[in-house]
Amino acid sequence: MSMATRIEHDLLGERTVPDSAYYGIHTLRALENFPVSGTPISQWPGLIIALAMVKQAAALTNHKLELLSSAHLDAIVAACQQIIEGEFHQHFVVDMIQGGAGTSTNMNANEVIANLALDLLRQPRGAYHVLHPNEHVNLSQSTNDVYPTALRLATYRAMDDLVAAMDVLKLACRTKSAEFADVIKMGRTQLQDAVPMTLGQEFATYAVMLTEDQERLREAAMLMCEINLGATAIGTGINAHPDYAELVCVALRQISGAPLSTSIDLVEATQDVGAFVQLSGVLKRVALKLSKICNDLRLLSSGPRAGFGEINLPAMQAGSSIMPGKVNPVIPEVVNQIAFEVLGNDVTVSFAAEAGQLQLNAFEPIIGYSLFKSISHLTVGCTLLATRCINGITANRTALQASVENSIGLVTALTPYIGYEAATRIAQLALSSGRGVAELVVEHGLLTESELRQLLQPAQLTRPRLSPLAA
Amino acid sequence: MSMATRIEHDLLGERTVPDSAYYGIHTLRALENFPVSGTPISQWPGLIIALAMVKQAAALTNHKLELLSSAHLDAIVAACQQIIEGEFHQHFVVDMIQGGAGTSTNMNANEVIANLALDLLRQPRGAYHVLHPNEHVNLSQSTNDVYPTALRLATYRAMDDLVAAMDVLKLACRTKSAEFADVIKMGRTQLQDAVPMTLGQEFATYAVMLTEDQERLREAAMLMCEINLGATAIGTGINAHPDYAELVCVALRQISGAPLSTSIDLVEATQDVGAFVQLSGVLKRVALKLSKICNDLRLLSSGPRAGFGEINLPAMQAGSSIMPGKVNPVIPEVVNQIAFEVLGNDVTVSFAAEAGQLQLNAFEPIIGYSLFKSISHLTVGCTLLATRCINGITANRTALQASVENSIGLVTALTPYIGYEAATRIAQLALSSGRGVAELVVEHGLLTESELRQLLQPAQLTRPRLSPLAA
Amino acid sequence: MSMATRIEHDLLGERTVPDSAYYGIHTLRALENFPVSGTPISQWPGLIIALAMVKQAAALTNHKLELLSSAHLDAIVAACQQIIEGEFHQHFVVDMIQGGAGTSTNMNANEVIANLALDLLRQPRGAYHVLHPNEHVNLSQSTNDVYPTALRLATYRAMDDLVAAMDVLKLACRTKSAEFADVIKMGRTQLQDAVPMTLGQEFATYAVMLTEDQERLREAAMLMCEINLGATAIGTGINAHPDYAELVCVALRQISGAPLSTSIDLVEATQDVGAFVQLSGVLKRVALKLSKICNDLRLLSSGPRAGFGEINLPAMQAGSSIMPGKVNPVIPEVVNQIAFEVLGNDVTVSFAAEAGQLQLNAFEPIIGYSLFKSISHLTVGCTLLATRCINGITANRTALQASVENSIGLVTALTPYIGYEAATRIAQLALSSGRGVAELVVEHGLLTESELRQLLQPAQLTRPRLSPLAA
Amino acid sequence: MSMATRIEHDLLGERTVPDSAYYGIHTLRALENFPVSGTPISQWPGLIIALAMVKQAAALTNHKLELLSSAHLDAIVAACQQIIEGEFHQHFVVDMIQGGAGTSTNMNANEVIANLALDLLRQPRGAYHVLHPNEHVNLSQSTNDVYPTALRLATYRAMDDLVAAMDVLKLACRTKSAEFADVIKMGRTQLQDAVPMTLGQEFATYAVMLTEDQERLREAAMLMCEINLGATAIGTGINAHPDYAELVCVALRQISGAPLSTSIDLVEATQDVGAFVQLSGVLKRVALKLSKICNDLRLLSSGPRAGFGEINLPAMQAGSSIMPGKVNPVIPEVVNQIAFEVLGNDVTVSFAAEAGQLQLNAFEPIIGYSLFKSISHLTVGCTLLATRCINGITANRTALQASVENSIGLVTALTPYIGYEAATRIAQLALSSGRGVAELVVEHGLLTESELRQLLQPAQLTRPRLSPLAA
Repeated sequence: MSMATRIEHDLLGERTVPDSAYYGIHTLRALENFPVSGTPISQWPGLIIALAMVKQAAALTNHKLELLSSAHLDAIVAACQQIIEGEFHQHFVVDMIQGGAGTSTNMNANEVIANLALDLLRQPRGAYHVLHPNEHVNLSQSTNDVYPTALRLATYRAMDDLVAAMDVLKLACRTKSAEFADVIKMGRTQLQDAVPMTLGQEFATYAVMLTEDQERLREAAMLMCEINLGATAIGTGINAHPDYAELVCVALRQISGAPLSTSIDLVEATQDVGAFVQLSGVLKRVALKLSKICNDLRLLSSGPRAGFGEINLPAMQAGSSIMPGKVNPVIPEVVNQIAFEVLGNDVTVSFAAEAGQLQLNAFEPIIGYSLFKSISHLTVGCTLLATRCINGITANRTALQASVENSIGLVTALTPYIGYEAATRIAQLALSSGRGVAELVVEHGLLTESELRQLLQPAQLTRPRLSPLAA
Repeated sequence: MSMATRIEHDLLGERTVPDSAYYGIHTLRALENFPVSGTPISQWPGLIIALAMVKQAAALTNHKLELLSSAHLDAIVAACQQIIEGEFHQHFVVDMIQGGAGTSTNMNANEVIANLALDLLRQPRGAYHVLHPNEHVNLSQSTNDVYPTALRLATYRAMDDLVAAMDVLKLACRTKSAEFADVIKMGRTQLQDAVPMTLGQEFATYAVMLTEDQERLREAAMLMCEINLGATAIGTGINAHPDYAELVCVALRQISGAPLSTSIDLVEATQDVGAFVQLSGVLKRVALKLSKICNDLRLLSSGPRAGFGEINLPAMQAGSSIMPGKVNPVIPEVVNQIAFEVLGNDVTVSFAAEAGQLQLNAFEPIIGYSLFKSISHLTVGCTLLATRCINGITANRTALQASVENSIGLVTALTPYIGYEAATRIAQLALSSGRGVAELVVEHGLLTESELRQLLQPAQLTRPRLSPLAA
Repeated sequence: MSMATRIEHDLLGERTVPDSAYYGIHTLRALENFPVSGTPISQWPGLIIALAMVKQAAALTNHKLELLSSAHLDAIVAACQQIIEGEFHQHFVVDMIQGGAGTSTNMNANEVIANLALDLLRQPRGAYHVLHPNEHVNLSQSTNDVYPTALRLATYRAMDDLVAAMDVLKLACRTKSAEFADVIKMGRTQLQDAVPMTLGQEFATYAVMLTEDQERLREAAMLMCEINLGATAIGTGINAHPDYAELVCVALRQISGAPLSTSIDLVEATQDVGAFVQLSGVLKRVALKLSKICNDLRLLSSGPRAGFGEINLPAMQAGSSIMPGKVNPVIPEVVNQIAFEVLGNDVTVSFAAEAGQLQLNAFEPIIGYSLFKSISHLTVGCTLLATRCINGITANRTALQASVENSIGLVTALTPYIGYEAATRIAQLALSSGRGVAELVVEHGLLTESELRQLLQPAQLTRPRLSPLAA
Repeated sequence: MSMATRIEHDLLGERTVPDSAYYGIHTLRALENFPVSGTPISQWPGLIIALAMVKQAAALTNHKLELLSSAHLDAIVAACQQIIEGEFHQHFVVDMIQGGAGTSTNMNANEVIANLALDLLRQPRGAYHVLHPNEHVNLSQSTNDVYPTALRLATYRAMDDLVAAMDVLKLACRTKSAEFADVIKMGRTQLQDAVPMTLGQEFATYAVMLTEDQERLREAAMLMCEINLGATAIGTGINAHPDYAELVCVALRQISGAPLSTSIDLVEATQDVGAFVQLSGVLKRVALKLSKICNDLRLLSSGPRAGFGEINLPAMQAGSSIMPGKVNPVIPEVVNQIAFEVLGNDVTVSFAAEAGQLQLNAFEPIIGYSLFKSISHLTVGCTLLATRCINGITANRTALQASVENSIGLVTALTPYIGYEAATRIAQLALSSGRGVAELVVEHGLLTESELRQLLQPAQLTRPRLSPLAA
């Protein structure tokens, strides 16, 4: 059985392309040149959609500037629209890891859009003399402005998902904070018993952390909205109409709904990847915070009997193939690993950023791929952590209460009344004898029992207070 | 000859301290425990000054809250003032790399201030029953709020120096940009000749990059201004007066001039190092940008004969012990290396941040040390790059002009008139024959000589333009 | 249409499993718990095969120790063999990024093997009372010895592919080294013209680098061969027969052909990931070397007219959507990016390694995934670099010859005869005047023309020599 | 008072040098060019000594080859010997972080040695016409072979100290392992109670880890012994006698006692920093292992009452300025931070390695500095961890014993007798009821009391065993 094909050519010669393919010879070469990760760019649908939006905006602008005919415009716009609506993504086949500074991704888009447009014009695929991938779809553009703009737009939009997932996680933390508002426990510094707090305060902290991280993410996302469309090859705007940059930005803003603006210096904007580095740094921050939260959860739930045993994580699956009944903190563990991956991705981004030379950073594909993985995996991780872990956490209230009463850390609350040096002696004595701080303080005549009662009311130990004795 | 000494004690027992030392037994133990880097905290004068400011603010607040006598207040305030003015820094001897979450740094400060205050009270050093390092100097405080607050304040203030050094560097770039505004050259993407630009545009780009980085630095610096004084041990404010946190922030704001505010959740603020991570991420960004600039400078000045040879860096020293007359780009090279160090420091900060557990991150000392090195070395680097390199750069104008005229990249400017496919053929022909693009275009009858002249006016090639032929 | 299903249960309750699935309830839970990367473990066929080999070795050993019946043995061995031969991999569905220290991967294997074995025993899937995933397939095993052993074995075997790809790349470099043995050029240090060498020496260097890296890889691969089968849960060998560890290692050695040995301390071996860290460090080294080679190739081929222009890389695809005829170094660029990814993976591995606690490192899945990506992408990268780039490189011999003759660096060769200080003066004069070193030396009476001719014979400039004048 | 001075000159002009300085104009320029870290190269005495050894070996070889007079030889050798013996290090003043690929370090050495030699020849400092830093001290050498050779030699020698410190740490772990050989405790996986082990096994593990790391360090150290002396500028050996490379290696081997050999390809050896990358990777491994050990120690000693409380670390200093009696794990904490620094240094080394171009890596100074910090800080860290922490650890034997008896993990030991599914049910019941596994097993008629006694003999639970029931 023979498959229908067509012949296409480029500066290297001719190649046979399957007629079923919307992509063309440039994409074919890229498929052969970059068989690296096995992950096609279509795995990031947001990037494909962003590319189509850019191409649509360019076509509208070119038409307005009388550089593109109405027939071409209509066909290109309709083709892009189909892609924006989620169709034909499977024709975006080039590998996420690719040389050429994104040229292959841009060419893949140009070719698929051209052939879709030719379909709409009832022309055979490959009839580029009618509508050409480079001369019409790519008109007034260069990979060097299209690709980073699409990356930025896709990243900006992906951030919404991450921030939303963090909202889910925050809500989970806040709900637990309310539920555990009256559960008193020992706070710890350097893993050593310190002074009392509530379990509610512990979970409230996580929500605050996430809120701050969301603010940083939003700031970093805004930097994504500065685009360089109109820069063409190196930022000088060669072959672009003087009004193109401004108009295409307006068009893309309307199509995408994103608050885009054009960089003031397009030469700088075309070579600089600072905004990606910044975003990667903030994603690193989010990862570190999530990892810290997971570390805490695993620690607090350690046990069930020979650990901290303060809280119980919900069981999500059997924990061991050999130890029956063992339940492990698998959700925090997977989130830890997502975090470690993000931390590595940040280093990858740094190396790629450092390697940029002169008027272009040729390594944006690996930057984009790294950011995509970091954002999407963190998004999943936040959701899993909320829905499959924190929502189901319960507290071992009795044990927590007892741990405060038995603690040596109580002596800190008495220091203002008995002094640092006496308090140190009592603490040492309590530790060596295994006895309680309260009884020792009374026994040594440092405070009376009734003074002690006033000073050690649990609810007062977890916030600043006026001296209960002074009252 | 015997040295005068005094006896001090702590929970481990007694130790002899040289009477000349303003520090005491806690500092002595730390000296023995942490002989790591050989770099004492006094190498960062800004940190010592910030510590003294915190202690001064705490004393003023304690006095206002009637927790500290006027005599104690006066002595402590005066002692702190001496330190703020740069005296006695040599008594801050504990190592930059230390265990204990900064306790040794805080204790070192408490002891030096107490003994300086005792001097002022005409008491012998070590007379802690009169004025005690912990009970008076450290009153209402914990290492866990003092240390991060001092780190933040010191970092905030150090940022001014960095931003100022970047201003110097920006000015150097802008001056060169103006000087080279009319020097046309080939822009390059992926190290391949692309399209024309001016050397002025190249240097302008660097100034824009630095401006953006400064904005990010200022944002990150503002995050440093959120402090947790009043949190005491774990953020619950145990042993602090309910009004303390607010008042001490006001006092420290006045003393330091920094726009400080108190974190809304002190439990969170005491354990979270997100702001340090953020700042480190931005310093990484600055480092990447500086490294990129230095890479470009080294590339553009490669030669003198078998390289790009576009610009000449000023000679700063003989370049070789064996190759006479060789001059190397030593200033960009040292700035590259500073950048590499900063990139490593960022990873150190990440590991330290990830390792925080529960109510405290015990690894703030290495975070602080890493940030200090990054900020101070970047500050030096920017200054060196401006004053010892960029200010002295000259351009090889004739060669640059010729490179544009001989370039194949000119064909891009003709594409709108002859089409992508014809242009591709001309480019291939030029490359294989060694001939010029212009003559080939005319020879193939694609454009007339007069059209060509209009299209290839240099000044028009470096910005967007209306079609010269359409006019 | 209703799909046939079966009911399975675990410690959390009952679940419906599609009857077509060879995996069971544990795998089902993992699918729901870890929807992270979208990359199932089956994407690493070598890992699936290694798991099956481990299970086969365990079954054979259990039978020999009279712990497993012949009927069970035969069924399990046959099931494993099918998997080893590449069948049923699609039933290994759990995500590469997973919590639970690999338990889900091990459970997935146990379940698929059990149900395949039940097929062979003509029993329905899920008839675990006949043959149980945990009690029979996992007998004498724990995830904690099975999973790292399979990871190590899979990694060891993958290394063969990488070393072979490096052989291809070495051959390419050596072939070019021979081809360019007589092409003289200027060597450069710090991007400044230094002294002459041959282009053959340049390519020979790359082959030597790769050889050294292969040696390091082989050493690191050998560390992979130390396994902990028999350790069971934490290395104490609980529930394993005293002879099990030794026998199962022999069995696995025979099945796999890998030179495996049992760690001397199984408690250590079960928690330690040092060998993975070491391997990752060596992969980082390989990545750095490849990146350096690619940087050099991109630099040497910069141009075609305004760059170094020493060599020409073969054109693999059109380089630009806007600049006709532009050809970019896309293969070196993609290899650079693979390298950057590997460098990030190494940091991920470090974070995961650092996070191990007590008797187990729960983060081996991300370690394994990172190593898999690094090894497989580097393997592709080496092959691409050889076959799609280096093999097609040509040299611009005439220009290279001229660059040596015009170079100021020639003066270094004269230093032993005219002294460092005179040579420095000549070099400065040549640079400022644009004239040649040779003529200036003669003009200044430092050497005669005939002496110069002897001293500057090209072939003699690229190796140590006796003084030609002394002869 | 006027300070005596002398005039020196270089290719940039003349400068005044204080007559007290043994260094000269090249060093002076470097001091001005690189005021970065404030850490002079003299802080690494091993590097200064290695430089002097290299210069001594070169002088001896040059004399043997009749290129250096006996008078020059004697003076240079004697000058170097003084430096090797630890004198005059304070004249090695250039900054650790420097541009120029180490040229300033080499020049500093050449100048100090020349002036010391002139002293010995009773000539005034600066009388370079008698004995010249470049023409005599640096004869047959280039920075590009001298500097990396000295770095390698210094690093090789520093490794001895690290390995010795690791021996101290291993001994501490082994001693504790013996002391705690009979202390039974619960092993943990994923922070959840797993199965029993001994505390002795826990400490034995650390010793095994360290032994493996030492082996890797020794392998990496051997790679340091491959030197490129004789390569001169770029590895072609220009201006070196054909016999020089071999002879100078023999001489340096004799002087240093290190098992040095000459690289087979000097062009490769001059540009490649693979051996430094490898060593840095191994130091990273050591750091990760130390960090893991410290994490464990901090976890096991968490408490004193609300933590794991298994072991007690010796108190090294008061732990808190606000919490009396608090003792923190300050020694593990400082070692953790050293580890984090080393992990960052490794990334710095990677960036510097990646940045090498063509015939030289100009960034060796930051590589050397990073390695120096990593090695020396790890050396201190191992010693501190042994002498100030592990040696003083005590165990809470009673609590550990009880934790095993109460554990649910005991059920794993019964699985071979009651089956995975029954064991799972018992474990769940024990957890929900708070009762013991043993009583539940008897109550459910799964085993008799006497069978249980046989199965749960503590000593048998921590190693593989034949079935006690089968016996």
